[in-house]
Amino acid sequence: MVGEKGYANRSLMIGDMTRDWLVEHRTQHGDREIAGTITLVYDHHRSHVQAVLTDLQHDHHHAIISTLHVHLDHDNCLEVIVVRGKAAAVKKLADELIATKGVKHGKLTLTSTGKDLIG
Amino acid sequence: MVGEKGYANRSLMIGDMTRDWLVEHRTQHGDREIAGTITLVYDHHRSHVQAVLTDLQHDHHHAIISTLHVHLDHDNCLEVIVVRGKAAAVKKLADELIATKGVKHGKLTLTSTGKDLIG
Amino acid sequence: MVGEKGYANRSLMIGDMTRDWLVEHRTQHGDREIAGTITLVYDHHRSHVQAVLTDLQHDHHHAIISTLHVHLDHDNCLEVIVVRGKAAAVKKLADELIATKGVKHGKLTLTSTGKDLIG
Amino acid sequence: MVGEKGYANRSLMIGDMTRDWLVEHRTQHGDREIAGTITLVYDHHRSHVQAVLTDLQHDHHHAIISTLHVHLDHDNCLEVIVVRGKAAAVKKLADELIATKGVKHGKLTLTSTGKDLIG
Repeated sequence: MVGEKGYANRSLMIGDMTRDWLVEHRTQHGDREIAGTITLVYDHHRSHVQAVLTDLQHDHHHAIISTLHVHLDHDNCLEVIVVRGKAAAVKKLADELIATKGVKHGKLTLTSTGKDLIG
Repeated sequence: MVGEKGYANRSLMIGDMTRDWLVEHRTQHGDREIAGTITLVYDHHRSHVQAVLTDLQHDHHHAIISTLHVHLDHDNCLEVIVVRGKAAAVKKLADELIATKGVKHGKLTLTSTGKDLIG
Repeated sequence: MVGEKGYANRSLMIGDMTRDWLVEHRTQHGDREIAGTITLVYDHHRSHVQAVLTDLQHDHHHAIISTLHVHLDHDNCLEVIVVRGKAAAVKKLADELIATKGVKHGKLTLTSTGKDLIG
Repeated sequence: MVGEKGYANRSLMIGDMTRDWLVEHRTQHGDREIAGTITLVYDHHRSHVQAVLTDLQHDHHHAIISTLHVHLDHDNCLEVIVVRGKAAAVKKLADELIATKGVKHGKLTLTSTGKDLIG
């Protein structure tokens, strides 16, 4: 598994697994500051989906660093929203965006702001 | 759970769960075209970590749409790499990036190109 | 001027000025491949401005690499569209986006794909 | 010229020209808050250019919202740095980045944060 996953040795892989577990654990505490991404796929022709998503994002603009929008084809958009804030607020925002009518697929990925992890 | 997750009714939530399951299922087939994001947190002062990550990305530049880099603080970087390609190739690239020495935390998030999902 | 602009010596500054002039010159030829950015500031509450901008971008999605959206405040958006294509097509797309009703300010910045410039 | 630039009528074009002139005028005042983009093209294989650029950016991370990196080909990178801050500080940062050894081409594009422009 060490080789398959591209690690040079076992202790590097164990270090990564430990940090991953730590990040997971910390995001359970609603008042910890976390960073993360919210990934959405939607068809921008669907009734007002983009307007609703943009309104939601501006309502939480202090928690959003920026949003990367990729035009996948004539209809489909991939949007990656980079967030930073308290875990509970970030999760609530993600739930609202993912539940928006017209969003085909959405995922929240949580990570750390790096401060509490030794590399 | 419907209300807690921000859905207006149960059938919207079931639609999302089904599409999520479908995306998960399809990414198991290595030759399906998928989209996704690779999220990395690292300290850019650590020896050559950024040079290694950039080299890896340029070696696979056909699979990478673009990379969003956020300067979290004086030391820590959050990098979100938006990828598109065959599932197997995307996973291999993610494994290599996440296993790079100096990366504190990394996650691959897979989604769809939207074509095979009805909104 | 060399010091004021942050250059270590005069020949470095002259090198930059020459390359800048070259990029400018080449973007005059409509069939040269160029890269660039289109920067837009708009109020997303203004009637349909975002829908019109997104439609225009999807119509030209082959020329657009990705779009970075920054939520400046509750109302104002900064959008940076990274483009790559023939100079004439990129200029036409920029003109259309900048002229869209509701866009407060827009600018096209042209650069090179790097292939034709020695560093 | 109105039609050529994609405007529906002359007053829309005059509105845009006036706002453009206003943005230009305001960026002359070093203590005005502005937004903007710094566009850089460089070969990431050139000695330490990326490390120098990243160090400079982290030194000014309060003025940088995020950076979009596009892998143009095996060698060339296009980097778009979205900035917000006092005009004088933004211009100084841009000068330093553009003058960095190994940068093939660089441009600063200034715009408004939208607050002082009526759409």
